[in-house]
Amino acid sequence: MDHTSTSRRSQPIGVFDSGIGGLTVAAALRRLLPQENIYYIGDTARVPYGGKSQATIERYSVEISGLLLAEGAKMIVAACNTASALAVPALQGTLPVPVTGVILPGARAAVAATRNGHVGVIGTRGTVRSGAYERAIHALAPEVRVTSHPCPMLVPLIEEGWLEDSLTDAVIARYLDGMVRSGIDTLVLGCTHYPLVKSALARFLGPDIRLVDSAENCAIAVRELLMQHGIDAPQTATGTLEVALTDASDGFLPVAEEALGLSVGSVRLAAVQR
Amino acid sequence: MDHTSTSRRSQPIGVFDSGIGGLTVAAALRRLLPQENIYYIGDTARVPYGGKSQATIERYSVEISGLLLAEGAKMIVAACNTASALAVPALQGTLPVPVTGVILPGARAAVAATRNGHVGVIGTRGTVRSGAYERAIHALAPEVRVTSHPCPMLVPLIEEGWLEDSLTDAVIARYLDGMVRSGIDTLVLGCTHYPLVKSALARFLGPDIRLVDSAENCAIAVRELLMQHGIDAPQTATGTLEVALTDASDGFLPVAEEALGLSVGSVRLAAVQR
Repeated sequence: MDHTSTSRRSQPIGVFDSGIGGLTVAAALRRLLPQENIYYIGDTARVPYGGKSQATIERYSVEISGLLLAEGAKMIVAACNTASALAVPALQGTLPVPVTGVILPGARAAVAATRNGHVGVIGTRGTVRSGAYERAIHALAPEVRVTSHPCPMLVPLIEEGWLEDSLTDAVIARYLDGMVRSGIDTLVLGCTHYPLVKSALARFLGPDIRLVDSAENCAIAVRELLMQHGIDAPQTATGTLEVALTDASDGFLPVAEEALGLSVGSVRLAAVQR
Repeated sequence: MDHTSTSRRSQPIGVFDSGIGGLTVAAALRRLLPQENIYYIGDTARVPYGGKSQATIERYSVEISGLLLAEGAKMIVAACNTASALAVPALQGTLPVPVTGVILPGARAAVAATRNGHVGVIGTRGTVRSGAYERAIHALAPEVRVTSHPCPMLVPLIEEGWLEDSLTDAVIARYLDGMVRSGIDTLVLGCTHYPLVKSALARFLGPDIRLVDSAENCAIAVRELLMQHGIDAPQTATGTLEVALTDASDGFLPVAEEALGLSVGSVRLAAVQR
């Protein structure tokens, strides 16, 4: 591993999402690995991925990964639950660099966190319907009970910037009341937008239910992969974050920047097929 | 016009939308023109159209119109604000049948309804950003003042089926409070989903603000076009509604069916490029 050239180790980590939500993963990477350069592409031209066929998601993910490789990415992170569920296996089989998604790291953390063996998962309709977290958790711990619930209002609430808001609190109570009553002791945030309402969720859930933040756990998995492949940036480096979108963004980018404490600066445009 | 064959007049009206929201237009057509057959295609595989480029929306709209013509459509209705704004001119220039959208009929009704010359328009971010209603209203009546506000939470609330719900009331109050204070006397529902929360909107707006339902006004425009071209179905006929989607639907179809009192029956699948 000592033979890995310094230049390789300084190349960026390539991160992609169907939109801007995956910036929570970029923010978690900045916190955990401030020495790493990050190149983020949000496929805002084709958002949302949820609901599209597996073949389409694979095609989009391969195309965006190609753009990241062209930027010199030393590894690829699918910071998108849909792409993680449907395309990471194909990417891992074809790309010349390590690849990780958000689902397996989240599932691992949930299995480690639960004490009573009952885990809740929230996500978009597509993610919940796919059963991806359930499968990943059961592959690790077949005895763990998983209760899932789709929360389709949370992404639009977050994109409105209503992060600390009585309306958001009311929607969270509506969605999670039954799940809390069912006796979960751990809740997986199965959508990359959701860490932006972590405080509101924690307020409703109380101290006895542990929150599993897929973004944070994904960052931990990235660190492991970088070390394992000997391609982690020198600790003395100062990393940067570059952001490209496939279509001009709406008002959510400033919301995410402020809430995540990210300084994105100028955003590039990347061209994709539509 | 008497020469138009009876078989032509019995052919269906082709209606399309990016998804299921346009069923409000199909329902308004059923109420106004019960003798007409309607063939509806929801492009659920590629929803939402909002945010995509004009070239893409035109391509999608031409493709879906082709499917409707293959079903024998005698006219085409773009029951989708985005397609109405971006693709109706192209469709009118190329299709061999009459074409209408929802924007011009809504703009006409708003100009007729306002007494103080101040009209509000609500819609998705994409529709409001496009300025399509504003342009259409100003083309008819340059002196009318238009105040627009995007309401991105309304579609997901409606798709959850929370039509008569304190949460929906609270979101409506949040969005419309400033607009009511600004002095509008007429509000255009610039999204085909919105007629499903017309009661909740009317409750908040009170009796002094008139609601312009684009779906109803589109149906009136369709009746005029049918008469004008002499292709209206015989009054003695009993029309049917057929629905096809380009991807399997989620839970919103039953919500729309129940709220609109539509009996959709079995839904076909139509194949499109993705």
